[in-house]
Amino acid sequence: MYPPDPSSAAHCTIGGNIAENAGGARAVKYGVTRDYVLGLEMVLADGTVLRTGGKAVKNVTGYDLTRLLVGSEGTLGIVTQALLKLIPLPGERRTARALFPSLEGACRAVERSIRAGTVPAAAEIMDRTCLEAVAGFQGPALDSGVEAAVIFEFDGDGPESLERQIARALSSCREAGVVDFRVAASPQEAEELWSTRRGLSAAVAALAPNRIGEDISVPRAAFPEIVRRIRAIGRQYGLVIAAFGHAGDGNLHPSILTDLSQPGARQKVDQAVGAIFQAALQLGGTLSGEHGIGVTKKDYIAAALGEAGVATLRAIKKALDPQGILNPGKIF
Amino acid sequence: MYPPDPSSAAHCTIGGNIAENAGGARAVKYGVTRDYVLGLEMVLADGTVLRTGGKAVKNVTGYDLTRLLVGSEGTLGIVTQALLKLIPLPGERRTARALFPSLEGACRAVERSIRAGTVPAAAEIMDRTCLEAVAGFQGPALDSGVEAAVIFEFDGDGPESLERQIARALSSCREAGVVDFRVAASPQEAEELWSTRRGLSAAVAALAPNRIGEDISVPRAAFPEIVRRIRAIGRQYGLVIAAFGHAGDGNLHPSILTDLSQPGARQKVDQAVGAIFQAALQLGGTLSGEHGIGVTKKDYIAAALGEAGVATLRAIKKALDPQGILNPGKIF
Repeated sequence: MYPPDPSSAAHCTIGGNIAENAGGARAVKYGVTRDYVLGLEMVLADGTVLRTGGKAVKNVTGYDLTRLLVGSEGTLGIVTQALLKLIPLPGERRTARALFPSLEGACRAVERSIRAGTVPAAAEIMDRTCLEAVAGFQGPALDSGVEAAVIFEFDGDGPESLERQIARALSSCREAGVVDFRVAASPQEAEELWSTRRGLSAAVAALAPNRIGEDISVPRAAFPEIVRRIRAIGRQYGLVIAAFGHAGDGNLHPSILTDLSQPGARQKVDQAVGAIFQAALQLGGTLSGEHGIGVTKKDYIAAALGEAGVATLRAIKKALDPQGILNPGKIF
Repeated sequence: MYPPDPSSAAHCTIGGNIAENAGGARAVKYGVTRDYVLGLEMVLADGTVLRTGGKAVKNVTGYDLTRLLVGSEGTLGIVTQALLKLIPLPGERRTARALFPSLEGACRAVERSIRAGTVPAAAEIMDRTCLEAVAGFQGPALDSGVEAAVIFEFDGDGPESLERQIARALSSCREAGVVDFRVAASPQEAEELWSTRRGLSAAVAALAPNRIGEDISVPRAAFPEIVRRIRAIGRQYGLVIAAFGHAGDGNLHPSILTDLSQPGARQKVDQAVGAIFQAALQLGGTLSGEHGIGVTKKDYIAAALGEAGVATLRAIKKALDPQGILNPGKIF
């Protein structure tokens, strides 16, 4: 199994995954792209071909260039080959869907479940705005005061392990006020649940003329608090902000739904985005969990990393690409 | 649980572990120090205090300075704080000892077991020279043509999982000609097996006036072949080379046992060490799995990383420590 599973899996590339250190739903248990790149072949700014890492799992011969290059957004070199790590496929997998009367309850359930020692292979959260956007969530379940859903995936090497994990997660969900907890009865049903999650980004985008999607990441325990703050920011600026993301690892994708052709809309959105970033940083989080900095978050990077952090990044960039010819204008 | 468990656990420090990216027996399943450092506070060469990373598990805000600094052997900055990742303790653990009539059989058993999908929490191998050196392995078991032992640790969230893992490992060991396979009946017995492994380095060192210990790492599948080549190198140079290490992750610690006060001994040892490094590199491995380059392997780093690799490391070193005041003379 190659664990990283970005929601864009159907159309993204391994090169792009490496450049952005792509994550996905399974990061809570299995980590991100960086954890599965053993070695790289890169073309450096001066045309030199650099090979890093290798098949030896343990390797401390020199600095870890492989992991420096993963997530460097094409600014330090161009990846031409990658050596990826595979792990044994889990013997069994089960998917469950839990519905909650509040988004905070849903967040709390995931946090409690992990604290109790059950690390799910995925724990994806979505709020009511998201649920209304996607097919498959309409109907009676959604009518009765449901404000959020969590899709859990559990895996393990046998049925007893899965039963135990599901029982513990159910217990954590009950403590957090779950109103419905359904374990998928077949692989088809599990696939249906996952396909709604994968289609979520597009479905939410269709709700308004413009969707501004963000990618903040906070310590897992701060997930309920960041959700509270984002809802407050939405109220403050009179904006609909749909929230979905990877509750298991603290990575949230708030989506601002608006019509940018309306007067003043752009300014309101910019202020709300700034407030969201500030909230994430205040809670010990960061600007980007898996999408990178690129162009749109450049202005905020000093707030996230501090002057010393940015100066260190710049020093490395200058050392490896003195003329700034690799993906110019990105990150800095 | 904090998984990294270097054999020096009783006297090493977290700072040292970070500087050298320490590994240990559990790396086969859980990875190394680098995988458990979420953030650092470092003092840079110019006195600036740099904070990297944080509690957010997913983080692609700028280059991954945290992982660049782990394993940099004090040459890029001085670690003053570290934020470490813990994982839930496994519910159950079991230790087993397998004895083999050949070192190659022991290697093959570990490789087969992992290929069959059973990743042990540890799979430590030792040859007959090692077995003779440590207490607890003498007696009838060792007499009957035993040439190597493997200590396995298995962990999981329930007894069924452990039974399944042990059954699979036993089956792989049988295919590889195991002569004895004993599962520790109590935590005390497991601890005894592990204490012999932890005392191994010192016990082997006591066998001769001088012990030159190395730390090569190869792709896991190449483990039997590197063992064969090291035995051939020992014969070629007339040296006793004891072999123990982490068969599960391909990291081997060949120990050359000699008396350096004898004429010509130093030269023979140097040649043998060079031949061992060359063999590791030829098999797609590297000079150091978990001990670093330091002073003694400086001469070999270009062979391992190539000119482009060394030039890239030097460029980074120069960018962050232009005057070369941090741990001077190491790595380069």
